[in-house]
Amino acid sequence: MDKLKQRILNEGVAIGSDRINVDGFINHRIDTAFMDEIGQEFARRFEGVRVDKILTVEASGIGIAVAAARYFGFVPVVFAKKAKPNTMTGDVYQAPCMSFTKQTLNEITVAKKHISKGERILIIDDFLAHGEASKALCSIVEQAGAQVAGIGIVISKDFQGGKAALEEAGYRVETLASVKSMDNGRVTFCE
Amino acid sequence: MDKLKQRILNEGVAIGSDRINVDGFINHRIDTAFMDEIGQEFARRFEGVRVDKILTVEASGIGIAVAAARYFGFVPVVFAKKAKPNTMTGDVYQAPCMSFTKQTLNEITVAKKHISKGERILIIDDFLAHGEASKALCSIVEQAGAQVAGIGIVISKDFQGGKAALEEAGYRVETLASVKSMDNGRVTFCE
Repeated sequence: MDKLKQRILNEGVAIGSDRINVDGFINHRIDTAFMDEIGQEFARRFEGVRVDKILTVEASGIGIAVAAARYFGFVPVVFAKKAKPNTMTGDVYQAPCMSFTKQTLNEITVAKKHISKGERILIIDDFLAHGEASKALCSIVEQAGAQVAGIGIVISKDFQGGKAALEEAGYRVETLASVKSMDNGRVTFCE
Repeated sequence: MDKLKQRILNEGVAIGSDRINVDGFINHRIDTAFMDEIGQEFARRFEGVRVDKILTVEASGIGIAVAAARYFGFVPVVFAKKAKPNTMTGDVYQAPCMSFTKQTLNEITVAKKHISKGERILIIDDFLAHGEASKALCSIVEQAGAQVAGIGIVISKDFQGGKAALEEAGYRVETLASVKSMDNGRVTFCE
């Protein structure tokens, strides 16, 4: 998605050799018109794929998933919780999720009643790095006996290996911007 | 909003005497078509009010704010963070926010660059109880020299006093469903 790549180059801020701050339009301040275009682009990429539900993880994934859902026929969005809230009663699916940026290990949680056997689930997230969050979401989908219809990512840092690992595991991964390298803070995209 | 009240009665689950679990359509699984209607309803309530930006707090507020933004002319959404991420550089506004349900005190954080002096900011959130989150968001808006254009809440538990306190402080508060009491798990709405 050329417009996204351009905005990453113009507005993104490289932090060290592996992080990109896009908090001006994606994950702190949301450019909602642009987010709507991102949602449309995911629908275009997954055209013809049956999607019963979108699964993401709080917090930054939620706005993207809600924007995209409209273009998949207003399918429901489920967001995994990073901490199990005390209003969550009943059975849950959980999967461990290491955050390399935060150096923390979370157990992400989805109430069992919100994913059903046989459903085709599209996973959406803002970033893909080592693939930990996506792998955890795939695990939850599969624990429920549902199927991963695909994985849609706004920005993949391909050099961190998550995309390759997910594809190797057999998942279809669509990334709207794939970063090849971030040498000295200079972002280069894959072709 | 009658449809919302009906769904709370049909699908909401009262927990103890003061909590309502609406995770089936608002804050874990999101009914995105209904969320779109909620967004439209906020726009109807605040018709004629100048809104330059919507401010909410992660995580459950994000989907609501993004759905609403479309009906305010795709204004940007900013969501306050409950923990300051390590990709957040530069100056920030912070305000303390007590969660009575979780019994935790957070410092919610917004990067200074995302709220500008003179802006008219609409605050959106899923629940209003004691008003702690809304007060913290108002504080951040005012620290920035911006103005609170109004506060839009999906479900207010009026009996916990937050709505009255905010109105007393001079804010316009629009609640789509106002709960008067929750005696023995039976939800009664205000007229």
